[in-house]
Amino acid sequence: MKRLMTLLAAVCLVATVNAQELANFAFGRKPIVSPEVQGETVTFRLRAPYATTVSMYGAWMPGYGDSIPLTRGEDYVWSVTIPAPSPEIYTYHFIVDGVTMSDPSNVLMQRDGTRYLSMLLVDGERSENYKEANQRGSVSHVWYDSELLGINRRMTVYTPYGYETSKKTKYPVLYLLHGGGGDEEAWTSMGRTAQILDNLIEKGLAEPMIVVMPNGNPGQQAAVTLNLPVSDVDYRDPANANAYVKSLVTEIIPFVEKNYRAIPKKSARAIAGLSMGGGHTTAATMLFPGVFDYICPMSCGMRDGEGVDAQMQAIKKAGYKLYWIGCGTDDFAWPGTETMVEILKRNDMEHTLFASDGGHVWYNWRYYLNTFAQLLFK
Amino acid sequence: MKRLMTLLAAVCLVATVNAQELANFAFGRKPIVSPEVQGETVTFRLRAPYATTVSMYGAWMPGYGDSIPLTRGEDYVWSVTIPAPSPEIYTYHFIVDGVTMSDPSNVLMQRDGTRYLSMLLVDGERSENYKEANQRGSVSHVWYDSELLGINRRMTVYTPYGYETSKKTKYPVLYLLHGGGGDEEAWTSMGRTAQILDNLIEKGLAEPMIVVMPNGNPGQQAAVTLNLPVSDVDYRDPANANAYVKSLVTEIIPFVEKNYRAIPKKSARAIAGLSMGGGHTTAATMLFPGVFDYICPMSCGMRDGEGVDAQMQAIKKAGYKLYWIGCGTDDFAWPGTETMVEILKRNDMEHTLFASDGGHVWYNWRYYLNTFAQLLFK
Repeated sequence: MKRLMTLLAAVCLVATVNAQELANFAFGRKPIVSPEVQGETVTFRLRAPYATTVSMYGAWMPGYGDSIPLTRGEDYVWSVTIPAPSPEIYTYHFIVDGVTMSDPSNVLMQRDGTRYLSMLLVDGERSENYKEANQRGSVSHVWYDSELLGINRRMTVYTPYGYETSKKTKYPVLYLLHGGGGDEEAWTSMGRTAQILDNLIEKGLAEPMIVVMPNGNPGQQAAVTLNLPVSDVDYRDPANANAYVKSLVTEIIPFVEKNYRAIPKKSARAIAGLSMGGGHTTAATMLFPGVFDYICPMSCGMRDGEGVDAQMQAIKKAGYKLYWIGCGTDDFAWPGTETMVEILKRNDMEHTLFASDGGHVWYNWRYYLNTFAQLLFK
Repeated sequence: MKRLMTLLAAVCLVATVNAQELANFAFGRKPIVSPEVQGETVTFRLRAPYATTVSMYGAWMPGYGDSIPLTRGEDYVWSVTIPAPSPEIYTYHFIVDGVTMSDPSNVLMQRDGTRYLSMLLVDGERSENYKEANQRGSVSHVWYDSELLGINRRMTVYTPYGYETSKKTKYPVLYLLHGGGGDEEAWTSMGRTAQILDNLIEKGLAEPMIVVMPNGNPGQQAAVTLNLPVSDVDYRDPANANAYVKSLVTEIIPFVEKNYRAIPKKSARAIAGLSMGGGHTTAATMLFPGVFDYICPMSCGMRDGEGVDAQMQAIKKAGYKLYWIGCGTDDFAWPGTETMVEILKRNDMEHTLFASDGGHVWYNWRYYLNTFAQLLFK
């Protein structure tokens, strides 16, 4: 006992110990490496002493039926080696005797709504900008009081490398909106926004910019991880339509332009969003023409109907520099995207349609951000 | 298929959908509520269709042998109801056929080093300040270049409610250091620093202050979750002793006082740390007497020996306002704390010993922060 106390006291004083190493040391087990990418393959491993069946499912597989079995080897370690999927970031999980779980050996995780998922990064040209750059910006969680929505609300703000030290420089701002089920952390967790912007800016491919990622659920104060009560206002009631979009333009933008070194001009404002956030993007520009010069809806449709042409003409009249639409051809939103393009065409509005493979998935939204961010503020 | 597309397109356009609700709707299952605190009990639940044994372990239980079994009920849902532990925050996990996993129904998680753990908050007077306050500060992850350590490094910075809008106010700064196995996110994740400070400041019990939480592992650029390479310098080599503490005082403090509205005075600087960070706290004050007026080592010892009295006399001569020591009487660091108190006594230095129940655990460190933060900068 005295020896243990001495050991532990030394741990307390010496700066070089690691909890995991200590645990492995204490329990005398080899650490499990999972996932392990080697050349063209990836191996997943799980120590599961009493399990009857272990399988795994990765986001690159077409459907849940495609989960693959692991086989039991030495020391109760189950494993499977498969061809590595193409370079990208994917989430995956294990299924142990019918229970879904993340990989306990993998500290890299992403949160998608209420689920925590293990993350696999496969190196390659496509995923190059998803890794940490050398020069990194700051990511902050800040709060604003919304009088319109009646609650205090959290947003995530990315400021580029050098923001703290460049005391006078002012920056343009991208307002980047998440989809249904997401929150103010979706773009930094699943979307790798900080890494993508850091890399693009470091390589001189994008202008240094601030990125503001609010919470697009108008009744929510913050992500569910903060366990805060939601507002009792019914935002399904048409009387409350566009409440969030109004807060974005009339409350969040003034907050950002007052409290950050942001350039308060149309030419220095971009708005982009995926799915529900794509709807917010088109709604914000239709309700408030002349606020944004850069408009980038992704994986979302546009409802055609009375009044749409007048709203689009107002955007055209106010002027804009980029109308960039991203969608996968397998996305359920593809027909809606075709409608949007049709509306833009008949209003004689310049636009770019960026059609990718695949569907309504994060690997497309990261790819779109990495693409259109290079076109902003130039 | 067309109906599904219409449904999904509506989801894409309408702002009120939640991914979990959609999943429950799609799969026709009742959502599992876990954990559920009701009066004096707490119930844990897990849907595990093919599991043979399910048990759970909570941090309030004395040892791993005390894990308790769940029993299988309707619809493959295993559950157990037990007396709720006393008000605090605890981590817990399930053990499914020998595999440890977090609770998939609980979105509240904390990361402790390389492990993600489910979180249980039991309401009560002791845990009151661990919940979200009404007025909340910002939490930022910022980077500084360390010439001393030769790497770019991340730190977490808490700025109090009103920092963004009070353009001229300057604030005192608490440097808050983590223990072995921790990183720059330990105090905001396990430690609930933002919530504790928000609540104390809102109630008028603590001065509005900035809290800086650096990464105390000198070879690390950032938490392991960022997957960055570590430095190849051997910090176990005595030639590199105190490298981190030197970077803290000669690099981090100037960075903070230059880039934040921090009061650059001894009377506006506090340093506190737990375990390894307690060692950093005492080392920083002994190597750099006259930098901090508030010194709060927690759950750590002090090595007695040649030169210690001279270093303590230098602190005494430079002057300080508070030497506050927190430790649990069951902590393996308690004998080291007794040595520290003995050294302070024989040097005739005023100090406060805050002895609590319990050991080397986060529920003590949150409690200590909640206690000594009320004594700073007054």
